[in-house]
Amino acid sequence: MIEKLRSLNEGVQERSLLGIGDDAAIIDPQVIPQGYKMVIATDTLVAGRHFSERDSAEDIGHKALAVNLSDMAAMGALPKWLTMNLTLPKVDEQWLQEFIGGVGRLLKRYQVELIGGDTTSGPLAIAFTVIGLTPHPKKRSDAQENELIVVSGELGSAAFALQNPGKISHCEQQLKRPMPRFDISEAVREFAGAMIDISDGLVADLGHICQASGLAARIDLDKIPIHAAIKEDADWSDYVLSGGDDYQLCFTIQPADVSLLPSDCTVIGHMQAGSGVSVYNNNQPIQLQRSGFDHFSGYSHE
Amino acid sequence: MIEKLRSLNEGVQERSLLGIGDDAAIIDPQVIPQGYKMVIATDTLVAGRHFSERDSAEDIGHKALAVNLSDMAAMGALPKWLTMNLTLPKVDEQWLQEFIGGVGRLLKRYQVELIGGDTTSGPLAIAFTVIGLTPHPKKRSDAQENELIVVSGELGSAAFALQNPGKISHCEQQLKRPMPRFDISEAVREFAGAMIDISDGLVADLGHICQASGLAARIDLDKIPIHAAIKEDADWSDYVLSGGDDYQLCFTIQPADVSLLPSDCTVIGHMQAGSGVSVYNNNQPIQLQRSGFDHFSGYSHE
Repeated sequence: MIEKLRSLNEGVQERSLLGIGDDAAIIDPQVIPQGYKMVIATDTLVAGRHFSERDSAEDIGHKALAVNLSDMAAMGALPKWLTMNLTLPKVDEQWLQEFIGGVGRLLKRYQVELIGGDTTSGPLAIAFTVIGLTPHPKKRSDAQENELIVVSGELGSAAFALQNPGKISHCEQQLKRPMPRFDISEAVREFAGAMIDISDGLVADLGHICQASGLAARIDLDKIPIHAAIKEDADWSDYVLSGGDDYQLCFTIQPADVSLLPSDCTVIGHMQAGSGVSVYNNNQPIQLQRSGFDHFSGYSHE
Repeated sequence: MIEKLRSLNEGVQERSLLGIGDDAAIIDPQVIPQGYKMVIATDTLVAGRHFSERDSAEDIGHKALAVNLSDMAAMGALPKWLTMNLTLPKVDEQWLQEFIGGVGRLLKRYQVELIGGDTTSGPLAIAFTVIGLTPHPKKRSDAQENELIVVSGELGSAAFALQNPGKISHCEQQLKRPMPRFDISEAVREFAGAMIDISDGLVADLGHICQASGLAARIDLDKIPIHAAIKEDADWSDYVLSGGDDYQLCFTIQPADVSLLPSDCTVIGHMQAGSGVSVYNNNQPIQLQRSGFDHFSGYSHE
């Protein structure tokens, strides 16, 4: 098992003093550039809840890690080190090989070093804990009144695919193989205010920014970018506002900085005094059906 | 849920820039003293495998965390920050309160800050990831020929209690409420060679030191400290050599440093050229029945 895990670091620059195979990994803080902060995020994914055991092992590995890495993007950080807790009902060599393939491709792509883990037997579940670095950590509490609200990419694709399996391959891809938006995160972290990744749904996640910043948000449904095919679905606004699972970024910027935005970013509203998220469609306020995905009660991918 | 988790930091010095409740926690590396290294360890504990669902929630919380903190002791480090992945079949307020009580007492005692987590629903399991600091990280690979092998405390108590539930309260305590040996770890980390905590059994864990250091170990069963009551059990040598779960420390020292050992430490053998662990009893070599507890195949509490 340990050799399989070690193989995940092939092609990755090892920045640790000691990696997998001891009681703990060792990192020399001297490798952290002056002025950078460390950010640490963790996620649990449980079979039957966050993914189906029928999903391919490669998709499961990809998504479990992508979700975790997306928290780094949300912080304006780049991931550097990872630990993995893998719980498996049985040792299935082929499953494991595919899972490691899905995880390994992301680790290589983003040069993240696996420094430790624990593999044990039990109901299928995965927990990742990632440590990243950034000179500009982005908090949910840093939004200001009159800042613009920006989202990356298109929203609602993953939620559409969940309800309409196999219908649109682009949406399917978004659901099963989301990619953390480090491209956007790195481009905006110097001037963005608050930032979050949209895991639980736009309204729910933007609501977190509102709550943490003591402000309200007003967004325009008609401005939110969505895949053309989704709009034919009767539930399209639900997918867009409450769907989640797209792992796009939502962040705030000063109006003067709008010209600094990279492509694939869209202004969808602004922060204002008050509390909560209000949604307008063609300047008419609309009522929200549901606010987002709760793992239990408000404590989810945090 | 998040308020419950926050309560775990009451009475703990918060060293993070940002703790629970955002996409990630933020730590300023400047809080790490000059010359110190970071050590990171993770453990998964699954109901039915590492503990029984019939165990008290407080015991489960205590043990899950103690096992993880013990990895810090094994590295010669003190724990500073913790993330927790908690998977629960349902939200049972009383269970949760007791679990948090068991976790919280250890966090306060060792001044460890909970900086993040993920609580989700699914089969009962807990994963902890701990970050600690030390000026002298202890690796398994740092044993040298002719060094003495030392263990802390008494061995076999937890294994005895597992086979003989309720018989000896001291052993019961050792099984359900083990305490990481930071007292020993801090006292010996400046002069110890290799160090490991005995989670999987003395022979198995000392075997890890042998393998990592490219050496053999010879230990004397008759020198290993055990609780008097255990010795009346026919399987006492199995408990002592292969039992594990005591979370005592095993480490090597130069013979000249034996006078530096704190109390509750016992020399049980020495490192020598070769490979593997050989066990003698009153100078007669003995055959080993089993080598230790495998979660799967040699990759366990690492």
